[in-house]
Amino acid sequence: MPATVESLFAERTKWMRASDVREILKYAEMPGIISLGGGLPSPDSFPLEDLAVIFEELLKEKNAGAFQYGPTPGDARLRAALVERLKTRGVAVETEGVIVTHGAQQAIELLGRVLLDPGDTVVTTEPTYLGIFTALATYRPSYHGIRMDDEGLLTDVLEDDLRSLDRKGVRPKFLYVVPTFHNPAGVTMSARRRRRLADLATEYRVLVVEDDPYYDLRFEGEDLPPVASLDKEGWVISVGSFSKILAPGFRVGWAAGHPDVIGKMSLAKQGVDLFTNSFGQRVAERYLRLGMLDRHLPQVRAMYRRKRDLMLAAMEEHFPEGVSWTRPQGGMFLWVTLPSGVDTRPLLPRAAERGVVFVPGHGFFPGPPEANHMRLNYSYPSEADIPRAIEALGGVLTEATGPMAAPAVGRASSARAPRPPRPRRPRC
Amino acid sequence: MPATVESLFAERTKWMRASDVREILKYAEMPGIISLGGGLPSPDSFPLEDLAVIFEELLKEKNAGAFQYGPTPGDARLRAALVERLKTRGVAVETEGVIVTHGAQQAIELLGRVLLDPGDTVVTTEPTYLGIFTALATYRPSYHGIRMDDEGLLTDVLEDDLRSLDRKGVRPKFLYVVPTFHNPAGVTMSARRRRRLADLATEYRVLVVEDDPYYDLRFEGEDLPPVASLDKEGWVISVGSFSKILAPGFRVGWAAGHPDVIGKMSLAKQGVDLFTNSFGQRVAERYLRLGMLDRHLPQVRAMYRRKRDLMLAAMEEHFPEGVSWTRPQGGMFLWVTLPSGVDTRPLLPRAAERGVVFVPGHGFFPGPPEANHMRLNYSYPSEADIPRAIEALGGVLTEATGPMAAPAVGRASSARAPRPPRPRRPRC
Repeated sequence: MPATVESLFAERTKWMRASDVREILKYAEMPGIISLGGGLPSPDSFPLEDLAVIFEELLKEKNAGAFQYGPTPGDARLRAALVERLKTRGVAVETEGVIVTHGAQQAIELLGRVLLDPGDTVVTTEPTYLGIFTALATYRPSYHGIRMDDEGLLTDVLEDDLRSLDRKGVRPKFLYVVPTFHNPAGVTMSARRRRRLADLATEYRVLVVEDDPYYDLRFEGEDLPPVASLDKEGWVISVGSFSKILAPGFRVGWAAGHPDVIGKMSLAKQGVDLFTNSFGQRVAERYLRLGMLDRHLPQVRAMYRRKRDLMLAAMEEHFPEGVSWTRPQGGMFLWVTLPSGVDTRPLLPRAAERGVVFVPGHGFFPGPPEANHMRLNYSYPSEADIPRAIEALGGVLTEATGPMAAPAVGRASSARAPRPPRPRRPRC
Repeated sequence: MPATVESLFAERTKWMRASDVREILKYAEMPGIISLGGGLPSPDSFPLEDLAVIFEELLKEKNAGAFQYGPTPGDARLRAALVERLKTRGVAVETEGVIVTHGAQQAIELLGRVLLDPGDTVVTTEPTYLGIFTALATYRPSYHGIRMDDEGLLTDVLEDDLRSLDRKGVRPKFLYVVPTFHNPAGVTMSARRRRRLADLATEYRVLVVEDDPYYDLRFEGEDLPPVASLDKEGWVISVGSFSKILAPGFRVGWAAGHPDVIGKMSLAKQGVDLFTNSFGQRVAERYLRLGMLDRHLPQVRAMYRRKRDLMLAAMEEHFPEGVSWTRPQGGMFLWVTLPSGVDTRPLLPRAAERGVVFVPGHGFFPGPPEANHMRLNYSYPSEADIPRAIEALGGVLTEATGPMAAPAVGRASSARAPRPPRPRRPRC
């Protein structure tokens, strides 16, 4: 008789849920499916020739340090290289203010671990990167969402809400934001709003977690200052990753900011996994130090720009009236809004039947979800597949929004009241 | 003015402490110091030629999967290879019963996350691997220690204690044990005790976490059955690692056992870091599948045997009367016991002055610590350094235990009552 282990689980385990994106992977693995659902970089973007050079060097290194245990906050040379790189963006941190993590996801988990008591408030954009919900679930925060438009987070709304929270005695522990090429929304926060956000962080003494993994993937427009570069007092923690600019397989991310916060994250990480894999850290350090990243980025940007353009052109051609979408200047995602009342979830199996999958927008909301969105990724599918996938998806959307759409729309909207009409400005 | 972030920290953060071993690293990094303190494999044990072959293959692999995101429970081929490897030890698990983790440390953290509510009881040996204290700290268990002798965990005491805990309505969530070449004690649990432990796990419905990272490093005596191989109902979770048999730098470990427990760990890991670095997983999988591990292990065993022998011989020569130690048949550590009343902590700076560091035994105890032990590592120091280090340490021990030792002994023992005399059998 096999053991019944149910009774051993902790209370928190009963509330654990798989993220929607991971669930969608089961469709994505079906043969012949084109996935616009994941958040994967193109395998063609991996700098394999540079990696061959780096691997050879690491195998010859004295004491084979790339293969040995390493210090918890990260390899000293990689931390120093990250300090230098952040400096080029106007972000001033000391080496003690940098921790290397097992991906940016771990940086967020560690921030939750050191900052959050049950019931503490976390402010996010609405929608937001959904990985934070699983990263922070153990620490049971309550979320407060702030809407966005095409200039990103609505800082006026944020100010009002911070003020009214303050009146109620609520001081949010942190505000999580993806300012550049937002995941899932594809929009970028304007310089003006970034400045305002930095000022509000100081005024309300709220830590801003600036998750900026796509910063280097701008293929249009000018670089904008990171919120951390506008912060005078140390209220911003920068989170970044090598997953989108080198390769996800090495699982190297980082957090940088106030050394007291980073120090506590390091103490927490010691218990969690002792240190981030040394091999990946050494690879990342060489990739930065030998100038390989800066030589490689233009190719990646050009590749993603072509893919975005192919996707936008196909959407113009195949998506029906009443559907709108964001036009990202970089990164990997765009966000599609259907007429209110259309739920994108039941469209997923229909799209899969036609050979394409996407992520319904539902899971990206910290509060009550809006059902009429979807996130599309253009970095992973091939240039040949993008027009085909969008054409197939366009067929599904035409059915769902056209005059014959009543059954699906009816079912989808039955669970919630119809939403008020949208403002003309594209919403995210 | 820099931000004061103190007020943002969670309650749990106030209790975070660095582990003693990590603190000792500051001595180990001083120039000219020989460290017997860490738990590092010898850099000479890393199979660099095999790795060169593997790296070349991974760079040529279709779709460059070693560099891409991967599934949360781990690479399917690595999980299948681990199922096969565990089968050779008599441990039967399905692929769904295996999760790949970012080192064995993360496996323990995830077990704490899915199993422990505050105040839950965890049973450990006394002493025990100290990394579990930091791994589980967030989940605030209470510990119940069980003594060992040279056959490992005292299963008779365990049975008595499980019975009396049961009478008090306490059902421990799990029992953590390192059965083979115990860290820090260097002893191995006998086959008889292993069988008894498996039976008690079933009888008392207590999960056993069998952490067995040194299993393959036996250089003397015969392999003993893992506790998991003696378990009929799924009450044992096997934890393992490539850190000691391949290289720590890839940070690949695993847990295997009841699919319901492994499934919850996987759900937890999704939030924690999404997946373990794909590159390290692919390296580990090739290393197993191409037979490289089995070809390589005899060299590592021979190397560590020579080092252990050098250390034991030097200890016989240089350690004073009244000091005893364990004689490990494998693994990386031995455990030294000084006369009761001697505290090894104040000896550490004196040893460092003479060019050698060790780990005081203090930090390895789940309950009230015994101060008169130290852990020595023989895998990392060179063959030339081992006799020198032991001679220097012998000098320190001779001073501390000799007739002139009063001041140090007095200071050290002042904090706690003298302990009762030891049984004659070497205790761990």
